[in-house]
Amino acid sequence: MRMIDLIEKKREGQSLTEGEINYMIEQYTNDQIPDYQMAAMLMAIYFQDMSNEERVYLTKAMVSSGEEIDLSAIDGIKVDKHSTGGVGDSTTLILAPLVASVGVPVAKMSGRGLGHTGGTLDKLESIPGFNVELDSSTFINLVNKNKVSVIGQSGHLTPADQKLYALRDVTATVNSIPLIASSIMSKKIASGADAIVLDVKTGSGAFMKELEDAKVLAQAMVDIGNGAGRKTIALISDMNQPLGYAVGNALEIKEAIATLKGEGPDDLTELCLALGSQMVYLANQAESIDQAREKLLATIENGEAIGRLKIFIESQGGDPRIVDQPEQLPIATYQIEVKSTKAGYISEIAADQIGVAASMLGAGRTTKDSDVDLAVGVVLRKKVSDYVNEQDTLAVIHSNQTEVATVIEKILHAFQIQDQEVTPKPLIYQTIS
Amino acid sequence: MRMIDLIEKKREGQSLTEGEINYMIEQYTNDQIPDYQMAAMLMAIYFQDMSNEERVYLTKAMVSSGEEIDLSAIDGIKVDKHSTGGVGDSTTLILAPLVASVGVPVAKMSGRGLGHTGGTLDKLESIPGFNVELDSSTFINLVNKNKVSVIGQSGHLTPADQKLYALRDVTATVNSIPLIASSIMSKKIASGADAIVLDVKTGSGAFMKELEDAKVLAQAMVDIGNGAGRKTIALISDMNQPLGYAVGNALEIKEAIATLKGEGPDDLTELCLALGSQMVYLANQAESIDQAREKLLATIENGEAIGRLKIFIESQGGDPRIVDQPEQLPIATYQIEVKSTKAGYISEIAADQIGVAASMLGAGRTTKDSDVDLAVGVVLRKKVSDYVNEQDTLAVIHSNQTEVATVIEKILHAFQIQDQEVTPKPLIYQTIS
Repeated sequence: MRMIDLIEKKREGQSLTEGEINYMIEQYTNDQIPDYQMAAMLMAIYFQDMSNEERVYLTKAMVSSGEEIDLSAIDGIKVDKHSTGGVGDSTTLILAPLVASVGVPVAKMSGRGLGHTGGTLDKLESIPGFNVELDSSTFINLVNKNKVSVIGQSGHLTPADQKLYALRDVTATVNSIPLIASSIMSKKIASGADAIVLDVKTGSGAFMKELEDAKVLAQAMVDIGNGAGRKTIALISDMNQPLGYAVGNALEIKEAIATLKGEGPDDLTELCLALGSQMVYLANQAESIDQAREKLLATIENGEAIGRLKIFIESQGGDPRIVDQPEQLPIATYQIEVKSTKAGYISEIAADQIGVAASMLGAGRTTKDSDVDLAVGVVLRKKVSDYVNEQDTLAVIHSNQTEVATVIEKILHAFQIQDQEVTPKPLIYQTIS
Repeated sequence: MRMIDLIEKKREGQSLTEGEINYMIEQYTNDQIPDYQMAAMLMAIYFQDMSNEERVYLTKAMVSSGEEIDLSAIDGIKVDKHSTGGVGDSTTLILAPLVASVGVPVAKMSGRGLGHTGGTLDKLESIPGFNVELDSSTFINLVNKNKVSVIGQSGHLTPADQKLYALRDVTATVNSIPLIASSIMSKKIASGADAIVLDVKTGSGAFMKELEDAKVLAQAMVDIGNGAGRKTIALISDMNQPLGYAVGNALEIKEAIATLKGEGPDDLTELCLALGSQMVYLANQAESIDQAREKLLATIENGEAIGRLKIFIESQGGDPRIVDQPEQLPIATYQIEVKSTKAGYISEIAADQIGVAASMLGAGRTTKDSDVDLAVGVVLRKKVSDYVNEQDTLAVIHSNQTEVATVIEKILHAFQIQDQEVTPKPLIYQTIS
């Protein structure tokens, strides 16, 4: 088999066989196929796409390129959740104890990543004492005992995907549905989940700005998951404004605590219930989505959900008192209000711009090795469709520096205010299975 | 400027500017842009094509990447000829003295190349004593004195094209009209010609099997040449059977001598007159194509053409007696006749298969460093539309080995013989300017 023949085949719009895709991924991972040939292949895939079968073969080949996590020692159906990434998205922090409290095992490996705020691991580390570096037997024991544990991701998962992603990044081939979908799904499958719930974001603050594109990506991932033998469903949710009010690490932990107590923002609560219901249903812990939702609501109302958070925190060395005393979490030195310069209805809060504002304050990581300031961020006071008077507070900046003029400007720019009333967009557009 | 932005621009079907193309080619030639980025760009060009302007910019950038030959010290309008490559094509050997004899300066740099037979240089070197390694002042003096000289190509022409060609070869991006056309034209333009006549072959023995593809390539090259300020025209000629009868190095020299004496094969003679007329006309040595043709015919009839060949050979150290005594050229030990196994009309002589047969005998070069056997080759006795009886000789193998069973088989396979009469295809399909 020769790589040049495979490039030519794909260039002509033909489908590659499972054997051809395995050859290509194995040889590329082992540096036997040079980057320039893979770059030509990636661009040919960009133009000619891949069939569902090819996408499944590619995903499985990337899974096989490295370590695969074995979660078989954990009782029950392991369901993982993945979000394509938004701003102010603390759903993982909420969902892990929430679905665990109704008996769904949550064995979550999370990354730190680059972004406007830190990743789930950074957010958890804003809880004093919380340890994400557990060995795998401790991890498995904790899940069997408490139904929930979250640890740092192994470095040996899907090396083929890591190598391909780095190449796509410099060859203008990132934005290709089969390549995006197989990259995400290979990591999920290698992480050992039996079933997968995807939260595909769409809107100004998401990778997929257009709903139609989000649908295509969601369907692609669902087809790969099911094709690879993992029951997979996707929700398409709105990211035309930040989710909830808080954007920042400790700030989002506080909001997650409130949500588990039943006092969280409406949109964040609703999204967690929607995603959580799917997880509970896929884990065979409910007979219908509606029943799953009832169960989740009950655990919030009767305190089991917030109780499970305490157990989860304590089991990984964290101080559970922050649940009742969230002021123990890192707090920024300055709180600066951002006031509206005009009256009217809010038609849009550009989520990516709010994210950039949080990042400017130090909430995010700009390079792999940079530090995250866990205390800082932005807390919205208003959301889309709210009416504001001139000088009403739109948002509060939590900062460890006083020089925030450009951050204020960035936030003011993110808010679009108009005279006419605004009908908010739906939170969840569609469920794809 | 960043290469990734240029890849993305081209991927989206936009045109690159002159500055962008210059940046890309300069940086790639200097190893500042890696192969993997250029490979992605080449595949994007494969799918999105380039505008005429982009093709001209690309060609000029490749010319500027290396040495440019300065022929300004030669009097008159220098016209170069280029063929896209066929089998048994000795037109350069004939055209050089032929057009020189009517006053057109021929300052030809030729390559050795890989192929079924050697290149023009190898063929000339089958003339005892002939020297193709002249310094440039000798070369220019000879052209000014005799109107003709042929030397080996400098290694410093269009290094960008050399590097790109090597990359295209391993990334399935050879077969792209803008890349083929700019590659050919950059070499012609760097070689210093004022005007260019292209012989674009089509048919089973040519790179472009289909007439329509040949037309597209011819138009692309003509547009680049004219866009770069070099008057360019193209003929599209037939390569559904070998040109002339001889395929081999010394064998083609003999055929060229016969043609310059007016005793050559009809098709070879006609193609030389057609290409030569265009060269004479572009060099302002005739007022019309018809007048140019008359002049060329006259020099064949009155012996000036063959006389110019003698002068040309002698001026480069070769033995001019071979013109009157072609038996002084290298001769193969064995002549083996290939006889028809059936009677009928010849409908096709697969030119590429005859080329392979010659190559099997040793007439061609399979690697850069392999030796060419100047004596061997194949001489056809019949051409398309001829009638043959069973046991009539179709071709004669000139070999230095007796084991030629597979060569005979190859030649027999190349001949298609049918019961119905055959109307031969036109020799020249179209002129594109």
